[in-house]
Amino acid sequence: MTKLKNDTLLRALLKQPTEYTPVWMMRQAGRYLPEYNKTRARAGDFLSLCKNPDFATEVTMQPLERYSLDAAILFSDILTIPDAMGLGLYFAEGEGPKFERPLREEREIRSLTAPDPAVHLKYVMDAVSQIRKTLDNQVPLIGFSGSPFTLACYMIEGRGGTDFRQIKTMLYKRPDLLHHILNITAQSVTDYLNAQIESGAQAVMIFDTWGGVLSHSAYQEFSLRYMKQILTGLKREHDGERIPSVVFTKGGGLWLESIAESGCDALGLDWTINIAEARNRVGHKVALQGNLDPAVLFSTPEIIATEVEKILKDYGSGSGHVFNLGHGISQFTPPESALTLINAVHSLSKKYHS
Amino acid sequence: MTKLKNDTLLRALLKQPTEYTPVWMMRQAGRYLPEYNKTRARAGDFLSLCKNPDFATEVTMQPLERYSLDAAILFSDILTIPDAMGLGLYFAEGEGPKFERPLREEREIRSLTAPDPAVHLKYVMDAVSQIRKTLDNQVPLIGFSGSPFTLACYMIEGRGGTDFRQIKTMLYKRPDLLHHILNITAQSVTDYLNAQIESGAQAVMIFDTWGGVLSHSAYQEFSLRYMKQILTGLKREHDGERIPSVVFTKGGGLWLESIAESGCDALGLDWTINIAEARNRVGHKVALQGNLDPAVLFSTPEIIATEVEKILKDYGSGSGHVFNLGHGISQFTPPESALTLINAVHSLSKKYHS
Repeated sequence: MTKLKNDTLLRALLKQPTEYTPVWMMRQAGRYLPEYNKTRARAGDFLSLCKNPDFATEVTMQPLERYSLDAAILFSDILTIPDAMGLGLYFAEGEGPKFERPLREEREIRSLTAPDPAVHLKYVMDAVSQIRKTLDNQVPLIGFSGSPFTLACYMIEGRGGTDFRQIKTMLYKRPDLLHHILNITAQSVTDYLNAQIESGAQAVMIFDTWGGVLSHSAYQEFSLRYMKQILTGLKREHDGERIPSVVFTKGGGLWLESIAESGCDALGLDWTINIAEARNRVGHKVALQGNLDPAVLFSTPEIIATEVEKILKDYGSGSGHVFNLGHGISQFTPPESALTLINAVHSLSKKYHS
Repeated sequence: MTKLKNDTLLRALLKQPTEYTPVWMMRQAGRYLPEYNKTRARAGDFLSLCKNPDFATEVTMQPLERYSLDAAILFSDILTIPDAMGLGLYFAEGEGPKFERPLREEREIRSLTAPDPAVHLKYVMDAVSQIRKTLDNQVPLIGFSGSPFTLACYMIEGRGGTDFRQIKTMLYKRPDLLHHILNITAQSVTDYLNAQIESGAQAVMIFDTWGGVLSHSAYQEFSLRYMKQILTGLKREHDGERIPSVVFTKGGGLWLESIAESGCDALGLDWTINIAEARNRVGHKVALQGNLDPAVLFSTPEIIATEVEKILKDYGSGSGHVFNLGHGISQFTPPESALTLINAVHSLSKKYHS
């Protein structure tokens, strides 16, 4: 059994009482930190950084050395699964991730198989174990995966930042093929997250970065359905501890009710929804994580504190809120702004927990 | 007084009874049409196409010659106003629009003035008059403008497709400067739309393409507020006819109630919201325009008809619905798909109007 020195995050995700609102930041180990850029330069490139457990541990720990964050999150790439499926992940300089062999042909799609995380993704599990050791039960470690739909976007388009034409054409013209890809991918994500839990992840999060580009009905059928499938197969306990789960669909504010029924413990919110409205709609079922616009961190300490206070006040009294940004922190964020944010959440939130 | 042969669109926008659901497509005069590409090649470049009333008329009319659309929409660029303000609009080959002199310095911002549409945007008004003549009262002509926030995104970022870092930094750090830009731009849009109405536009639409990137409260303060300001200053009648107005915020599904109170006659919807839900929330106040995912047009005639029927059925019986895509038609759309769509809307919608 673990004895966490600070388990505020886990309690908040399970809607248990806490003394203050816990906070972490999506992409908290990232390019806005000069020490991250130094490690990355030593690693050579981004994939080497992800695939080497020593480097992954080092960058995971960096934001925790600077800030009193309430959680660590595994440093890894969102595309480890399609990479392990053999699609040939690579990073072209100055561009995002790409695949050498995007999924287009039925034959290739039908021969897709779920990778064995103990074999093909062992480097991730090694990183999880090593980070847990290094963390020494200071704060919990969050594991994560992309959602099946989000992974499929990259797998079919071959890269990010597209108009989603390839995947949407398949969705409307050959839904059977897309369902096949999503089904294999959902199995893979389930195995992957369960392996992370067995290796030491104390909470897990599913990032549905692209679900918001779907129509209301396509979202249910092609994104949420497969996240439900994962949640059904997820280990809910490990070493006698509950493992809370978070689902985050960027741009999913219209669909909160159905996401809250997916079986997750908490919902991630982007900044387009008022958290008071979100709590009113689904707060009886799930905890909420969010939802400051990351661009607020480009402003002054006073404005950052004001915007933090607005969200805390909108959420209101009681537990069930994990403070976070509504999306990953920008690489252009001054590191002092993150410090202001974290300290503001801790000091301003105490009055809502008494 | 005009005697329109087909005024179905205008009646639907005003929630008056119609015999079927009218339909048009955002960006219906565009690159998916081979005849458009030919005219564009003759014009030399995109700006010459926009600035020459003969060419603008020609491409506005092209989709009406192919399809039984219920409206024409002025062919023009969304960035005519910032261009007239002197920001130096240009199109780099293979990239989107850019400005030579994006707004960053306070001095430049304070010296911004609203262009006189009769002088600086005369080419647009000439196009409107000429299109009206060519249309010969067949269907109504829709005039349009970008929303102040959307125009400000381009004016401050200097181009589209960015992370909105410059405008959001200004929004949070120097809201006074952004309000100044938005105020001048809102005055400009009001004058511009009123000049279009005087030149013959029979309905107007405000495209808030980027409002959806804002937080719920920033949307109210920096986007919706200035669209309200425009709607307050808009001519509601011309030549004895009501001029209906449409507001479309892409990604604005969470905010429909407040948009419906802006003073517009109709709301544009993207495909992320179920139109039944939208009607339930705001259908007592406004007409609704939308909301097929443009990617449906990459599929088969059967699937296009099925998806059209779903939306018609979701909206249900009675007037107040203008069928449209949830965003501009893709340049990769087969022109036959647009034909299938338009015919499906006309034939399948009759039973909902009896």
